[in-house]
Amino acid sequence: MRLSRFFLPVLKETPADAQIVSHRLMLRAGMIRQEAAGIYSWLPLGFRVLKKIEQIVREEQDRAGAIELLMPTLQPADLWRESGRYEDYGKEMLRIVDRHERDLLYGPTNEEMITAIFRSYCRSYKDLPKILYHIQWKFRDEIRPRFGVMRGREFLMKDSYSFDLDEASARRAYNRMFVAYLNTFDRLGLKAVPMRADTGPIGGDLSHEFIILAETGESEVFCDSALVDMGAPGLDVDFDGDLQPLVDARTSLYAATEEMHEAERFAAEVPEERRLSARGIEVGHIFYFGTKYSAPLGANVTHPDGKDRPVHMGSYGVGVSRLLGAIIEAHHDEAGCIWPESVAPFGVGIINLKPGDADTDAACQSAYDALVKAGKDPLLDDTHERPGGKFATMDLIGVPWQLITGPRGLKEGKVEIKRRATGERFEVSLESALSQLTADQAGK
Amino acid sequence: MRLSRFFLPVLKETPADAQIVSHRLMLRAGMIRQEAAGIYSWLPLGFRVLKKIEQIVREEQDRAGAIELLMPTLQPADLWRESGRYEDYGKEMLRIVDRHERDLLYGPTNEEMITAIFRSYCRSYKDLPKILYHIQWKFRDEIRPRFGVMRGREFLMKDSYSFDLDEASARRAYNRMFVAYLNTFDRLGLKAVPMRADTGPIGGDLSHEFIILAETGESEVFCDSALVDMGAPGLDVDFDGDLQPLVDARTSLYAATEEMHEAERFAAEVPEERRLSARGIEVGHIFYFGTKYSAPLGANVTHPDGKDRPVHMGSYGVGVSRLLGAIIEAHHDEAGCIWPESVAPFGVGIINLKPGDADTDAACQSAYDALVKAGKDPLLDDTHERPGGKFATMDLIGVPWQLITGPRGLKEGKVEIKRRATGERFEVSLESALSQLTADQAGK
Repeated sequence: MRLSRFFLPVLKETPADAQIVSHRLMLRAGMIRQEAAGIYSWLPLGFRVLKKIEQIVREEQDRAGAIELLMPTLQPADLWRESGRYEDYGKEMLRIVDRHERDLLYGPTNEEMITAIFRSYCRSYKDLPKILYHIQWKFRDEIRPRFGVMRGREFLMKDSYSFDLDEASARRAYNRMFVAYLNTFDRLGLKAVPMRADTGPIGGDLSHEFIILAETGESEVFCDSALVDMGAPGLDVDFDGDLQPLVDARTSLYAATEEMHEAERFAAEVPEERRLSARGIEVGHIFYFGTKYSAPLGANVTHPDGKDRPVHMGSYGVGVSRLLGAIIEAHHDEAGCIWPESVAPFGVGIINLKPGDADTDAACQSAYDALVKAGKDPLLDDTHERPGGKFATMDLIGVPWQLITGPRGLKEGKVEIKRRATGERFEVSLESALSQLTADQAGK
Repeated sequence: MRLSRFFLPVLKETPADAQIVSHRLMLRAGMIRQEAAGIYSWLPLGFRVLKKIEQIVREEQDRAGAIELLMPTLQPADLWRESGRYEDYGKEMLRIVDRHERDLLYGPTNEEMITAIFRSYCRSYKDLPKILYHIQWKFRDEIRPRFGVMRGREFLMKDSYSFDLDEASARRAYNRMFVAYLNTFDRLGLKAVPMRADTGPIGGDLSHEFIILAETGESEVFCDSALVDMGAPGLDVDFDGDLQPLVDARTSLYAATEEMHEAERFAAEVPEERRLSARGIEVGHIFYFGTKYSAPLGANVTHPDGKDRPVHMGSYGVGVSRLLGAIIEAHHDEAGCIWPESVAPFGVGIINLKPGDADTDAACQSAYDALVKAGKDPLLDDTHERPGGKFATMDLIGVPWQLITGPRGLKEGKVEIKRRATGERFEVSLESALSQLTADQAGK
């Protein structure tokens, strides 16, 4: 992409009403624009990161054996009357009346609808197990939307739903999602700690939140610091194998959100030097809730013994749009965002210090072509902005690598490479720069 | 994908209330499920095709220089009060009141919002030209939703918006989209004819609809049959070059929708043997409307002469979800869908005629692995359904190639390949089958 053709409306000034760094940086870097309270447009830069996050979430769901579909944003109210949540959900649910006076709602979550889909097609234990998921916009009418995309009203969520014959099998589905989430957040450059959590309005018996530690977190969390240091299971996990040991290794160590915290247990179980209390951002939440929805909605399956019983279910959410904020909270500095390469909006930023200078233009063009060919998704700043402004913009938008090219360096056969995360800069030949930036390790 | 793990709820019986073939086949093949009038879930098979269509539409927008972003589904009513369309739009607009009694609406289109985005960041002729687009769910509260996804209420649309200094430049943006649309529909396996059209509620001076000819089309259309035979411009078009000759070659021949039809001109301009009158399905619609939105919304740019004038705009829509229906209307037979390979939900269907037979299982597995490796996205029917049922399902869902493997054939070293579009079947060795199916021409 050439910057002269892109749409990147960076702001010179910090917006006064943005309270946390991710919100400020997303506005300043031209990633989002507020259209109404808690409702955002995703400008091209933000959209690119959103799509990359979505794709990683999708790949890890697929790897874990979940099947993707897409439910609509609007749902009939009657379905929620069946489960009993239509009245319970309160003012957070956006209720809508259509031209024929039928009650609709903008889905805040999809337990009811997926259960209705399941019950209309699946009747037998032979149809099990199944994990279905979708990545769709949801709406929750928060009384006080804030922190940008971290607590918006219209937000993108990945929600999965598992269907099993009994609790033991449902537990295996739960473990699949547990492990898939650890790998997902790891690929996104995040250290997410699974913590015992309250089940809240979803209900059920077993629940974990996946929490990123960050100063701006909304709630206090308590955990054994060994959990933070523990690596992800890795992409070569056999999801058809026994995942229980991987899960046990993490759930046997103390980790709890504020609501579930037991100070005495914390003190008794965790050595003092590993007792971590911090602020946390929830990026995922998983639930096993048995027959809470299948029983009232009549989603029964015939067991091998010939008897019909309600299917056992769980649900598993990742806040896809919220993750942009969480990643920025975890990866930024004074100058702007520092994207992990897996989700960076562009792989390499090429800065042309003197557009119009024939040699510089030619060098930038050849770098651009080579990086496109290598799949590195470069952004070429070919604008007539002054160099200082170009450096600031490239730092602000957080492209992982910069290739700085100008007539003075080229006379000596040199360009400059800058690594955004560390600030390291080094001068090399254009040829050597390209061989470094197109090598696979540059993609890590 | 293994069918035993997929979620493919095919229906044995034809749904009684589906009036057109695409609606019937989408229900029977387990592609969609109606959740409310005109509101559908996209089951995994339908979702796969939807995503492939969306991706082709995206690639051709990008190739034409359009920049992707994403606007929210909900919009503040005030924006539509500024343009004057809030009252005009009537009951098709889904109006919503949030918990703070603020008026929102579910966007039926995005002229107002994109103009508001433009005006808040772009002020100078130096920011032009720009084409911005998004692919987002829209809602139009049709009084009588029908024909499945062809006239739904919640539907997926790609809408682009162009911003230019004057009419001449706006016309170049119009031509870019005109040519991009021809290539898009061609890649989707559709013959779409551009026709002069009424501008309707969008307004403006210049408009073309892109129409697929099909017996089930909603409106009558009239055109020179030479237009139907004309090929697409091709993916190597230089979008920065002069596109006018490509556009003129198509707009100089007679083609008009019912509202714009002039019988006398038709008779005078088109030789009798080329006078085609047929039913048509609209799959795209492009508009140039000048300053219709920029003037009331105050989206002005400073011209080189230092004066501010409203920016010239156009908008360009493709009905992404509707395209599934249109493609089925164009490509099906008695047995089911016949997907063009570019949008097929799977590239090859492998039918295991005897799961449990060691040799057959091994042959299917090796075929599966080879096809996955070649990027052919195979579906392996490893279920215990009887062969007749497997053949019927694979025909119904319309996978372009079938690889039929059973113990009897394998004893003679043979498998069978079936080409869905023609019904041709031939027996070959497994090795030869795989070299044919993994070759690039199988992808065409």
